[in-house]
Amino acid sequence: MSPVRFRFSPSRRVTQTLRDLARRRPDEAEIYLEEHQDEWELLAETVPEDAADILEALDEEGAAELLTGLPPDDAGEVLDEMKPEAAADVLEELDPATAAHLVEEMEPDQAADVIDALERDEREAVLAHLDPEVAAEIERLLAYEPDTAGGMMTTDVAALPVGMTAGEAIEALRRLHDELGSNLTYVYTVDERGRLVGVVPFRELVFARPGQGLDELVVRDPVAVTPDTDREQVVELIQRYHLQSIPVVDDERRLLGMVRFGEAIEAAQAEAGEDLAVMFGAGEEESVFTPVRESVRRRLPWNLFNLVAGFVTVFVVAQFEDTLARYALLAAYMPLVAGLAGNSGAQAIAVTIRSIAVGELPPGRELRAVRRELAVGLVRGAIIATVGALLVAATVALLAPSPNPGQETVGPRELAEIIWLSMMVGFLVAALAGSSIPLLLRRLGLDPAVASNIFLTMTTDAVGFGSFLLTATLLL
Amino acid sequence: MSPVRFRFSPSRRVTQTLRDLARRRPDEAEIYLEEHQDEWELLAETVPEDAADILEALDEEGAAELLTGLPPDDAGEVLDEMKPEAAADVLEELDPATAAHLVEEMEPDQAADVIDALERDEREAVLAHLDPEVAAEIERLLAYEPDTAGGMMTTDVAALPVGMTAGEAIEALRRLHDELGSNLTYVYTVDERGRLVGVVPFRELVFARPGQGLDELVVRDPVAVTPDTDREQVVELIQRYHLQSIPVVDDERRLLGMVRFGEAIEAAQAEAGEDLAVMFGAGEEESVFTPVRESVRRRLPWNLFNLVAGFVTVFVVAQFEDTLARYALLAAYMPLVAGLAGNSGAQAIAVTIRSIAVGELPPGRELRAVRRELAVGLVRGAIIATVGALLVAATVALLAPSPNPGQETVGPRELAEIIWLSMMVGFLVAALAGSSIPLLLRRLGLDPAVASNIFLTMTTDAVGFGSFLLTATLLL
Repeated sequence: MSPVRFRFSPSRRVTQTLRDLARRRPDEAEIYLEEHQDEWELLAETVPEDAADILEALDEEGAAELLTGLPPDDAGEVLDEMKPEAAADVLEELDPATAAHLVEEMEPDQAADVIDALERDEREAVLAHLDPEVAAEIERLLAYEPDTAGGMMTTDVAALPVGMTAGEAIEALRRLHDELGSNLTYVYTVDERGRLVGVVPFRELVFARPGQGLDELVVRDPVAVTPDTDREQVVELIQRYHLQSIPVVDDERRLLGMVRFGEAIEAAQAEAGEDLAVMFGAGEEESVFTPVRESVRRRLPWNLFNLVAGFVTVFVVAQFEDTLARYALLAAYMPLVAGLAGNSGAQAIAVTIRSIAVGELPPGRELRAVRRELAVGLVRGAIIATVGALLVAATVALLAPSPNPGQETVGPRELAEIIWLSMMVGFLVAALAGSSIPLLLRRLGLDPAVASNIFLTMTTDAVGFGSFLLTATLLL
Repeated sequence: MSPVRFRFSPSRRVTQTLRDLARRRPDEAEIYLEEHQDEWELLAETVPEDAADILEALDEEGAAELLTGLPPDDAGEVLDEMKPEAAADVLEELDPATAAHLVEEMEPDQAADVIDALERDEREAVLAHLDPEVAAEIERLLAYEPDTAGGMMTTDVAALPVGMTAGEAIEALRRLHDELGSNLTYVYTVDERGRLVGVVPFRELVFARPGQGLDELVVRDPVAVTPDTDREQVVELIQRYHLQSIPVVDDERRLLGMVRFGEAIEAAQAEAGEDLAVMFGAGEEESVFTPVRESVRRRLPWNLFNLVAGFVTVFVVAQFEDTLARYALLAAYMPLVAGLAGNSGAQAIAVTIRSIAVGELPPGRELRAVRRELAVGLVRGAIIATVGALLVAATVALLAPSPNPGQETVGPRELAEIIWLSMMVGFLVAALAGSSIPLLLRRLGLDPAVASNIFLTMTTDAVGFGSFLLTATLLL
């Protein structure tokens, strides 16, 4: 269940301990690290990922103090590993000149994300203090939407002219080694105008003879994306072709940067999490860091939509006022049917959306998927409706021992019949609606998750309450 | 929005066209490919990923025919790229000996997944025809759960003894090159008993002098996992340390295999999709391929739980039978409050679960997150309750133009007041429940997504209906 600890060197074990301490008792961790500056510097230099975790757990002030105690290049690497929002919180503690100095040490893509997360005033102050060239690059990256290839790419790329030999390429790469670090996974070859020609897998460089031309090793016409390519598609291409990174080019095929697979993992998580949020009309990018005002702005339209959609149910139920006036107890059992149908439909939606997301639902399989859900709904309906009817028959005597004057009683058997029939209808409608709503939304060119659940609730509420009251009206 | 097409060589453009054709008109694509065997063979050899997509779109019989028309090693690579369920469907069309022959050409991890997806009889027949060594390896892999490192790992790994020089290592790797293909990203060094000693990044081999010892290049004590390490943790480690693959070792540190980053991307998608499914009690691994019987078995317990939980609402509403008997119209407006609270709480759950999933909610931030949701709920509640009250006041005259005998009327103003108050309560309870239910489940050591929504619905239904009827009883 756990990663292998016994293989960790002592320093890694110490790191783990410090990380855990920082999460549980941040103040103690802060004091310890401030008193053990050497240990902190070693940690930041060797495992910036863990140093980033520790800073994220501390309060902003303490984190800022520890960060500025590091050599600038190490501080830059730690900032690279922090969540952009958390890194921005820490930089806001520093004066703009110091913050700008640290931002210059960061990877351009992460630097842009952090600048984007700064408060407006602070952002402008930091940009003003940045080296003009770095500022220009960051502003260029900021222009891309975060959920596009442009927003995901790094501009630190190994690009070599075609026409070099393998030996010359290795010499050139040796010089880039320190600067590019772990970005040095693929080498892209470009022509004299900077246009992407091909890609040389590192593996091939290992096996090449020094005099061999790069053009013999290069894979021509590599899959590439433009900055406006959607995040989802970037992930699909990286995954489909098992790429460690995918090049980003402009309209004239000039190499602009590359998206690394790590970004693709994060994007895959974000995309899938997005479905969950979007399904209920929470914001796509919303998190516990999102300001209240922003959250309200994002969710309110769906709440309003839900309010208006809810009137469908109000009108349906209102049609049965006579029945309800005669048998008030029915109102107590009514929500049971709609609630079960709603949850059962949401199960169908969840499975359908996930199958769409992983590409298992091409147009040809749509009808089969709906039929399958109907079958699942029929079987579950039969079981749950029967159990439900029995439970209802058992409780009706408990809940209505003596009817009120002017009220008519509903017998256990009659109520059981009403429950059974309307639950069956509810389960079937839920199966149909839950599987077809996301597919219909996709057909309309919309995100299948968007508001699926609100449409579903509208349907299952109206049908659930309606079929319950209609059955009651007919049977009683 | 789209990947760059103009960079694709003609053959890639043809591939795209064929893939689209196969998806829209599978029969035509099948006939075309059968008549253009050369083109099909070239496609399968150069872009097995796309050939796999085409086979997945065709019917099983046609796919089987095209597959057996390929040289076995190419057929194996195409099968490697197919979804295991789809590959199993195709293999079931073949006689077991032919199927076994193709399975032998596959990567062991994918072969195990495909064998696992075969019908029971077919599985045994294929295993019986396999080379005993391959069969043993597959059965070993089958013993691991699919959501563990063991279930995700490949056993095709480059492992070299420590003590080699860089030059000797490159020679040894050259021999492994064809066999390991794209798995040749990291080189692991092992001692004489096969125990993992270190990892050599390919990058370092490029820059090494031939006489340099591997032990100078090796990163010692690499992060490793055991076969039973949970999928989620494997993804976290690959992502945290930007690894292209992570080694899997046994209790005695012997190298068993490695998990590649591509598996981590898939796992990240699966994990996030799992939350969506688990939240409603659909099966963790359920998809449109899951048999009806299996789906029913997985979802039924939650439907039953939901049924029982629903009785809380039945009992709450039953307490207000007198009020409902006097004002039957109330029953029509009652679902509006519960429905809005339910959806609003689900938004809070979605944001909370996602924040937990991406690690933004350490214990220290829990209270802040709940307070934030309460603030979001309060603001939205005030707006929606006001709009809702106005809408209800406007419609009550429409819905109840002439009260039934024995029924008392509810004025627009009274109903608006009832709606406003109960909606405010509903929104606040939804915010509290939606943010704290997943956090409480996590505190209890449970998956925060499991049945979150059922607990939420239980709460918002009971509170929504209850507060509406209680307010009505007090005000009327």
